[in-house]
Amino acid sequence: MTLKILYAGGDNRWPDYARPLPAAIEAAGLDAEIADDFAPGDVDYIVYAPNNDLTDFSPYTKAKAVLGLWAGVEQIVTNKTLTQPLTRMVDSGLTEGMVEWVTGHVLRHHLGMDAHIVNPDHEWRFSPPPLARHRPVTILGLGELGTACAQALAALNFPVTGWSRSQKRIDGITCLAGEDGLAEALSTAQILVLLLPQTPATENLLNATRLAELPEGAVILNPGRGPLIDDDALLAGLDSGHIGHATLDTFRVEPLPQDHRYWSHPRVTVTPHIASETRAETASEVIAENIRRSEAGEPLLFRVDRTAGY
Amino acid sequence: MTLKILYAGGDNRWPDYARPLPAAIEAAGLDAEIADDFAPGDVDYIVYAPNNDLTDFSPYTKAKAVLGLWAGVEQIVTNKTLTQPLTRMVDSGLTEGMVEWVTGHVLRHHLGMDAHIVNPDHEWRFSPPPLARHRPVTILGLGELGTACAQALAALNFPVTGWSRSQKRIDGITCLAGEDGLAEALSTAQILVLLLPQTPATENLLNATRLAELPEGAVILNPGRGPLIDDDALLAGLDSGHIGHATLDTFRVEPLPQDHRYWSHPRVTVTPHIASETRAETASEVIAENIRRSEAGEPLLFRVDRTAGY
Repeated sequence: MTLKILYAGGDNRWPDYARPLPAAIEAAGLDAEIADDFAPGDVDYIVYAPNNDLTDFSPYTKAKAVLGLWAGVEQIVTNKTLTQPLTRMVDSGLTEGMVEWVTGHVLRHHLGMDAHIVNPDHEWRFSPPPLARHRPVTILGLGELGTACAQALAALNFPVTGWSRSQKRIDGITCLAGEDGLAEALSTAQILVLLLPQTPATENLLNATRLAELPEGAVILNPGRGPLIDDDALLAGLDSGHIGHATLDTFRVEPLPQDHRYWSHPRVTVTPHIASETRAETASEVIAENIRRSEAGEPLLFRVDRTAGY
Repeated sequence: MTLKILYAGGDNRWPDYARPLPAAIEAAGLDAEIADDFAPGDVDYIVYAPNNDLTDFSPYTKAKAVLGLWAGVEQIVTNKTLTQPLTRMVDSGLTEGMVEWVTGHVLRHHLGMDAHIVNPDHEWRFSPPPLARHRPVTILGLGELGTACAQALAALNFPVTGWSRSQKRIDGITCLAGEDGLAEALSTAQILVLLLPQTPATENLLNATRLAELPEGAVILNPGRGPLIDDDALLAGLDSGHIGHATLDTFRVEPLPQDHRYWSHPRVTVTPHIASETRAETASEVIAENIRRSEAGEPLLFRVDRTAGY
């Protein structure tokens, strides 16, 4: 029987998936059709990304799973019409891109590159940076992405502290957990990287109190989720100089509105949500593998725990 | 008998060595005095860096070796008064710093950071970079520094080609050699890193002909030696746009003169010779180990081949 796979990943991304998704489905040995307009009651699987018309999952009575194309699921996990199993995307391409963005911006701040990139007075200021082994970095969030970034930075000799809700163990990384662990993780962070999932518990996690726990001049990188940060508190910290710089890739509203203070603040760099981008080729393989598993009665990869919210 | 070790590493660096050098000598089990004013005929070893008053080595008739503090030896290797064995510095701290600078600036150009760091019109241009695995990088020079940089970039998935005078073999790196190999190494280089030693054979290696062999828009990083580049040819390539950007850490004259076109060229970033900096603590250990070896009749580490010039 031919499976019916609904593509609800957004029209603007379909050109990226038009070739790799059918190819991955076929390579997985599945007999399936892919379209964006099946009758809801006929659909076997839904390939889903936020920001499209599909918000009511109740008519999809036969659907065996909703297979997300995004790493973050906060826009769907609270949808009460969604009763089917939900998976999020853990895409090797997405992880690689995140590691590249985080490693690049950590090194940029570590090396003090901005003073060389913008140097209108042509000043030759010989002041070599310390070695990475003397530059402590803290990563909040030790999921797939946080762990991969922690390992890449540790390979460059940065002393890396990682913090997560539940205690983790990762070779070469100082792993902390819980509220006391968070205070300790913040206190040593010359560079802080936010890679937590967005949940009610993590919203505004970086508030005025926690920002004050960072060392003077700390740099913040946020490639995770905009709402992890209390924006007003961060701007106050930047104004006072307690926070040395913030390089932000995610925001509460995207694109970041033209009149937002982040655009013009001298201690802020805005990057346009490019750190984590699902790559159609590797993501299609994950989708196909999960359909194969479901049809074979095997457990789904990357299934979302609806109570934890990620 | 107490060895007499002459410190000729420059007054300005002595404060860095005042503690670690005697400590390393003692830890190596050597009985030695260190000073900058022994009678030349009494000196057993000379710890040397360029840019100081010592240019005539002939009075140091008893000296068993000249132990360099710099990785580059082009300023001393042609000194005809130098008849003693010469070693150059291969310092783990120097290698780490070089890997950090090279990896950081490769990622900076790979990610297109400059357009985010300087973005006066506050443009949200969503265009994620390709993955590193689709960004070929070529490194000219596969000595200690080039090899370490190649391995760090390969660990981040960059396809790395390395070129050297004699054929090397390094896991995960495409190693080329010879004149044909150079043309091939240049032809694929979206980012080119210069880490060759400075010798008569490498001076102006990157001339107009070889620059033309790079793909359109290639980026050049030169943390190696200024004279590796024909400056006029590079400026012409930058003016035409064939070379997308040059980030230069080393120059024929340092500090780079205020009126040099590199300062003001929009496609050039100047960094003030910070990529490779000998670290006193680790360098002192290398010096002490070489004195211990010499006294024990063992071969010196990192001895310079005077005919090859490095």
